[in-house]
Amino acid sequence: MRILNIVPIISDIWTKETDEYVSKYLLPDTEIVTRKLSYGPASIESEYDEMLASPEVVFMCRQAQTEGFDAVFVNCFGEPGVRAARECVDIPVFGGFEPAVNYALGISEKVGIVTVLPEVVSMIEGLIAVKGLKERIKSLRYVNIPVLDLGDISDLIKALIAESKKAITEDGVGVIVLGCTAMVDVTDSVEKGLKAEGYDIKVIEAAQAALIMLETYVRMGWRQSRLTYMSPPNKQRVWPSGTNITEI
Amino acid sequence: MRILNIVPIISDIWTKETDEYVSKYLLPDTEIVTRKLSYGPASIESEYDEMLASPEVVFMCRQAQTEGFDAVFVNCFGEPGVRAARECVDIPVFGGFEPAVNYALGISEKVGIVTVLPEVVSMIEGLIAVKGLKERIKSLRYVNIPVLDLGDISDLIKALIAESKKAITEDGVGVIVLGCTAMVDVTDSVEKGLKAEGYDIKVIEAAQAALIMLETYVRMGWRQSRLTYMSPPNKQRVWPSGTNITEI
Amino acid sequence: MRILNIVPIISDIWTKETDEYVSKYLLPDTEIVTRKLSYGPASIESEYDEMLASPEVVFMCRQAQTEGFDAVFVNCFGEPGVRAARECVDIPVFGGFEPAVNYALGISEKVGIVTVLPEVVSMIEGLIAVKGLKERIKSLRYVNIPVLDLGDISDLIKALIAESKKAITEDGVGVIVLGCTAMVDVTDSVEKGLKAEGYDIKVIEAAQAALIMLETYVRMGWRQSRLTYMSPPNKQRVWPSGTNITEI
Amino acid sequence: MRILNIVPIISDIWTKETDEYVSKYLLPDTEIVTRKLSYGPASIESEYDEMLASPEVVFMCRQAQTEGFDAVFVNCFGEPGVRAARECVDIPVFGGFEPAVNYALGISEKVGIVTVLPEVVSMIEGLIAVKGLKERIKSLRYVNIPVLDLGDISDLIKALIAESKKAITEDGVGVIVLGCTAMVDVTDSVEKGLKAEGYDIKVIEAAQAALIMLETYVRMGWRQSRLTYMSPPNKQRVWPSGTNITEI
Amino acid sequence: MRILNIVPIISDIWTKETDEYVSKYLLPDTEIVTRKLSYGPASIESEYDEMLASPEVVFMCRQAQTEGFDAVFVNCFGEPGVRAARECVDIPVFGGFEPAVNYALGISEKVGIVTVLPEVVSMIEGLIAVKGLKERIKSLRYVNIPVLDLGDISDLIKALIAESKKAITEDGVGVIVLGCTAMVDVTDSVEKGLKAEGYDIKVIEAAQAALIMLETYVRMGWRQSRLTYMSPPNKQRVWPSGTNITEI
Amino acid sequence: MRILNIVPIISDIWTKETDEYVSKYLLPDTEIVTRKLSYGPASIESEYDEMLASPEVVFMCRQAQTEGFDAVFVNCFGEPGVRAARECVDIPVFGGFEPAVNYALGISEKVGIVTVLPEVVSMIEGLIAVKGLKERIKSLRYVNIPVLDLGDISDLIKALIAESKKAITEDGVGVIVLGCTAMVDVTDSVEKGLKAEGYDIKVIEAAQAALIMLETYVRMGWRQSRLTYMSPPNKQRVWPSGTNITEI
Repeated sequence: MRILNIVPIISDIWTKETDEYVSKYLLPDTEIVTRKLSYGPASIESEYDEMLASPEVVFMCRQAQTEGFDAVFVNCFGEPGVRAARECVDIPVFGGFEPAVNYALGISEKVGIVTVLPEVVSMIEGLIAVKGLKERIKSLRYVNIPVLDLGDISDLIKALIAESKKAITEDGVGVIVLGCTAMVDVTDSVEKGLKAEGYDIKVIEAAQAALIMLETYVRMGWRQSRLTYMSPPNKQRVWPSGTNITEI
Repeated sequence: MRILNIVPIISDIWTKETDEYVSKYLLPDTEIVTRKLSYGPASIESEYDEMLASPEVVFMCRQAQTEGFDAVFVNCFGEPGVRAARECVDIPVFGGFEPAVNYALGISEKVGIVTVLPEVVSMIEGLIAVKGLKERIKSLRYVNIPVLDLGDISDLIKALIAESKKAITEDGVGVIVLGCTAMVDVTDSVEKGLKAEGYDIKVIEAAQAALIMLETYVRMGWRQSRLTYMSPPNKQRVWPSGTNITEI
Repeated sequence: MRILNIVPIISDIWTKETDEYVSKYLLPDTEIVTRKLSYGPASIESEYDEMLASPEVVFMCRQAQTEGFDAVFVNCFGEPGVRAARECVDIPVFGGFEPAVNYALGISEKVGIVTVLPEVVSMIEGLIAVKGLKERIKSLRYVNIPVLDLGDISDLIKALIAESKKAITEDGVGVIVLGCTAMVDVTDSVEKGLKAEGYDIKVIEAAQAALIMLETYVRMGWRQSRLTYMSPPNKQRVWPSGTNITEI
Repeated sequence: MRILNIVPIISDIWTKETDEYVSKYLLPDTEIVTRKLSYGPASIESEYDEMLASPEVVFMCRQAQTEGFDAVFVNCFGEPGVRAARECVDIPVFGGFEPAVNYALGISEKVGIVTVLPEVVSMIEGLIAVKGLKERIKSLRYVNIPVLDLGDISDLIKALIAESKKAITEDGVGVIVLGCTAMVDVTDSVEKGLKAEGYDIKVIEAAQAALIMLETYVRMGWRQSRLTYMSPPNKQRVWPSGTNITEI
Repeated sequence: MRILNIVPIISDIWTKETDEYVSKYLLPDTEIVTRKLSYGPASIESEYDEMLASPEVVFMCRQAQTEGFDAVFVNCFGEPGVRAARECVDIPVFGGFEPAVNYALGISEKVGIVTVLPEVVSMIEGLIAVKGLKERIKSLRYVNIPVLDLGDISDLIKALIAESKKAITEDGVGVIVLGCTAMVDVTDSVEKGLKAEGYDIKVIEAAQAALIMLETYVRMGWRQSRLTYMSPPNKQRVWPSGTNITEI
Repeated sequence: MRILNIVPIISDIWTKETDEYVSKYLLPDTEIVTRKLSYGPASIESEYDEMLASPEVVFMCRQAQTEGFDAVFVNCFGEPGVRAARECVDIPVFGGFEPAVNYALGISEKVGIVTVLPEVVSMIEGLIAVKGLKERIKSLRYVNIPVLDLGDISDLIKALIAESKKAITEDGVGVIVLGCTAMVDVTDSVEKGLKAEGYDIKVIEAAQAALIMLETYVRMGWRQSRLTYMSPPNKQRVWPSGTNITEI
């Protein structure tokens, strides 16, 4: 199957190496195609960024369906454009929040999320509310590192261990979800670090979780509900001429 | 005070007459300036429409602050761009959902909303969830009339009475909120119609409620919390060249 | 319009100066008439006090309607007699809790209340429960100063800043509501004090909020729902002969 | 032990026969003393009635403690004055709502209440909210018979069977609580009537439940928490001279 | 009346002295018969232990009904087999959790539980969730003493006082429930210890509470709802030959 | 990978054909081994049945770990023994409820379950409560067909379509979960039937969902949290001699 991996920013932080790392977990016949935005924010760290990213994300989802992709991953924990895209296409679309959290629900009754910055806490709280999961997500903490600085892996791992530890001891969680899809290839180190301090706990990487959830949805023929995500009524819609989208 | 009234669509359904109607309820020194979008949807009836409307709404909010407006009303019950705009400006910004509902809370423990189409039910349920008001909003119904057909006032009034009646008798609500800001100048007729059937109940018009809430916020010096709606971090952001926005 | 301001105690803590202070925020044509109780408690700091205050409050609300007042403010955060009064009259009646909190909902998803004494915590928790707002009011703290000692403004301000700070940092709130209507003319100082410590947050004064909410209700023709607050059935009711109420 | 049974109205609907009926369920050494109000409403069917009943209820509770009673039953499902009384005395005080409901919790996860009139629905919803039992009380219905007309037993039984049946089939409850303490000596008939229609379900009488709960509390030395129901601070309190209360 | 007291373990920790202690609180005509398991765990400190204890508990409940017992107490806070037993018999069956908690609800809006070990926290959280009491049970703490070591009374009392104090000061509870039925004859000491530190609070013993609740249910003719706990359909069921149960 | 499929009953309703049907959805290298109970119930339709099934289920889970299985599916929507088994083993264990529901969460905000009999409604409501998913599971209905009669596929399909339709139109769900793992190979027919009536909705088969979730957990190295499902403390445990289990 072919999955479109939309990195909903204009930066190049999702490299070929990241694709290779993620692919290790995928099925042999799963092909990932990665595309980034031509306009929007350099990273998503506010509702403003999310809003700017959303339009082209949705246009790319529609393009993906036209090109015959089997599914789309909107590669951001904030899920920019995901709800709108689900209205527009019939292939499954996931952002980073929902798959990681839904898998984590099977691991422990109490889920903790560790994200990047205080600026996104309110946005993620909104997602938790919309998804009706306040009873399950008992901790929402942040490492206080901007998205574009996550590349300094050792600082990130140290901070993730520290915040996860608080989530375990103060909030009682039994599983950690990494609350930014740009936190990649660190779960093993964080799990080891926590084990060294006496905490045997699983850490879920959001991008991995999303791609694997999409694989499953494609295999099973599942996709977003047409009763929940109804098709937008036909009407006139105008988009700036400087873009490659003419009909919306 | 001067309030910018952003009609977040490309259609002309908000006329001079509507301005005049709304102004009757405002304070003598309140000036309303109405502007519509240059790109986006003809009406908002899906999350897709909302997403398309949001970017220019936010840009217009920032422009409003620059021009010295005291407040901005994003004239849609779906509240496109409101959360992002609140991050970006220091003047109060309201959409149509929150003011009407917050005023209705003081009228009855059980609030009912009657909106336009089934396509927007899921979007409004999302707003209710994010605002933590599931305990209070006990009914969400729709007249099944598209936004651009609301001009046929007598059909609208008939349908609003019918759905409000169900909200009262089946869901037990004690106040009705009109769930589309384009439902204007019908509350008296709906209240009378309901009274004729034995139901003494107030009907709240969303656009009115929002403008009056904004007047109050300006008088009191209140605005969205900077702790909840944190300023977006500085970074590169690109927007299509065909628009009049260069710096975002 | 004329609003009756019932100070539901037998003490004289609501002075002419307070009336003048509050009036600064009101519309030019709003006239406030202040009356206190002839029997009841010296201040309201328990459910017992609230109960003792309630009967004359309700009688005064009915008298206000007879006299042609447009609205009544029951000047106490505990809202003594408010629900009963709403059953008895057709003009809007607010206590101190609901307007301040409903306005605060538009400022931040997470509201904090700072009240006077531990004795009233349970009473306010009851109000929060009845109003279905547990999802929104995330902090309920107290300055530990009795109502009749609130006149020592500098102590009050210091304590309000300290408790608000805890509400922000420990409970994550984005707006503060002062949980006693006798805390007047301190919001500016508290906001400044918090800003000096790095917290940019709005502080809502309950009495102001209530009077302004009532102004709006009168302008819009809104009042408590007759479906929620049904008129009490006719029947014999007896009240002590030592009072000026004969027919209840 | 001696329990004071306060009938918080000025009518004589609680007769010697009722005392005898209720006593059949009590322990041999339990003595019930019944007293009614000297001022207040003829029956309690609104928040207004409840408010009018409350002051003398509380004074009688204090008097009961002085006289050496072991416990007080405030004989009304609306629980007038109960919270204030709990602040004032150290002997257990129950109204009619809480004991019946707390016993019913042990019978079924889903409790139904059938009360008298629509006028009291909002008041009982308030009790359910304050007690945090919305998850358990799944049905709140009424027979539409005023309190003072409950004496027509056969009409009452017929209506209770009809409403209980709806609570079972439409709301899924597994136990019925009679939502008025003046519904006495009808549980057997209602249970039989429901069994005849195929529903094997227990019906809880509120007055019985309260007296038995009080017996248990006295035997075990339990009473309302002094941490929840803190003693009212000392202060001046005035009550009309036409009453027999001088010091409050 | 005769109540079967099933101690659902194979150890002898419930002695004749314990029976005598508990009986002091019971009615003169209440007879307690204590039986323990022939197979199962030595104590219940996990869901695994609970599961192993359940089958013989249920068989003993059916045997109790056959022998003419009036009620059964499953003497464990984890309530092993209680729901299954309720399906199988028509006499009331309680475990240790529900009666203590339901009585505590009448004492304070905020209940705290102090149990034995971290291993049972998740199990008790499950009970709280199933009973829909998350709004009321505000604290769940443990003394970190295994069940079979609870005999060292002075250590237990010290730990209970320490954890109860945290439940009061950090979680705001107004009543403590001892979360293990093997914590017997310590409530007085714990209450005294807490009073010495300034906290006037009631402590509920779970085994006592359960037996007294059962006495009440028998007196009133109440038992678990047949609509909630429906009788298991007839079918083939096989149980190991090494047990004294042949027909299940 | 090798997954043990425990059919937790003594009947032979899970045939070789069912294994083959289910395997069509699995990965090429996934091997399913199916085992049924030697003692327990013929089918699971009550908490009593679930309790009887649980012990051998858990013993078989431990045996599976010893034999080197990668995961265990407890093939029943009621999840007998799952929580206890998770405490005892380090390989992932799922019953039928959780995987189907967690996958359905990604399809629609509102999930409906259609199960077999009224007898299991209370049990499934318990699972929903423990999993904190009341906000998401909006409909719980049953076809009123016993488990052992589900083989009559055409009756089952008709009933599933009828109940699903009610779940959609009356309860507003956007996805259906089949609430019994013995409902196999009917999702296509039910989806087609619903589509013919105008409802485009996905139907999730519980056994499929569980096996696929287990495949994913094994691939990702995830399993139940050791912090939530703590290992049972060591102690004496006795099991009937007529079984093949000696050390428990």
